[in-house]
Amino acid sequence: MSTFKMAANCIFCKIIKGDIPSMKVFESDKTLAFLDINPLSYGHTLIIPKHHGAKLTDIPEEHLTELLPIASRIAKASGAANYNILQNNGRLAHQEVDHVHLHMIPKPNEQEGLGIQWPQQQVEKERLQKLVEEIKSKM
Amino acid sequence: MSTFKMAANCIFCKIIKGDIPSMKVFESDKTLAFLDINPLSYGHTLIIPKHHGAKLTDIPEEHLTELLPIASRIAKASGAANYNILQNNGRLAHQEVDHVHLHMIPKPNEQEGLGIQWPQQQVEKERLQKLVEEIKSKM
Repeated sequence: MSTFKMAANCIFCKIIKGDIPSMKVFESDKTLAFLDINPLSYGHTLIIPKHHGAKLTDIPEEHLTELLPIASRIAKASGAANYNILQNNGRLAHQEVDHVHLHMIPKPNEQEGLGIQWPQQQVEKERLQKLVEEIKSKM
Repeated sequence: MSTFKMAANCIFCKIIKGDIPSMKVFESDKTLAFLDINPLSYGHTLIIPKHHGAKLTDIPEEHLTELLPIASRIAKASGAANYNILQNNGRLAHQEVDHVHLHMIPKPNEQEGLGIQWPQQQVEKERLQKLVEEIKSKM
């Protein structure tokens, strides 16, 4: 079994330890997946790294590699034709539990599933080109 | 260089080949990342597998493993404190380009970035328990 960081007061770490029950659909050394009990649609599942961290940038890369392959397997098993994969970081970005989790949310119709608003901006190409150099220099 | 499937009429495959210019911030054998030119916020980046496939479930797992680690590096380099990772599958789920892409969208304030609606449902525990068994049996 891999070793990973845990946080004493984290509800998802308690689920991983088995101190709080969950509706598990998948478990490996590094990853756990279980149904969201307040789903946006039938099949709404959470996929989490066992390693504790609040935001994506807090998780070591080796604990991130399995998450999307497993989300894909669950999406396939759910039979959803349309679905969203969402991972929120920070209160402003709608994160409610401070342990990284991917949502796999089937989108069966307009009413159910994730609602998305898409406020596109117009940005000058020069400003974007400057941003490219800035991001590249920091990676 | 890895071999991967391409689609002749796919705009992202044309970006990968270099036939259409893009604002690249990262490239590896399997993965490409570039700025969204109609961003929801400053720093909005797309991370794509080079292997062509419309939906997450169409991509071989070995082409999915890098995507979240790279999204994490880009989120860190962008300096965003709050951000959403989003991957849409199907028109109903707001997908516009039929080549898998992760959005890394900084959420600097209420107005900019991704807007989310969260229509939670109440589902009976028995129905969820049945769903657990159904998903597990199909994985």
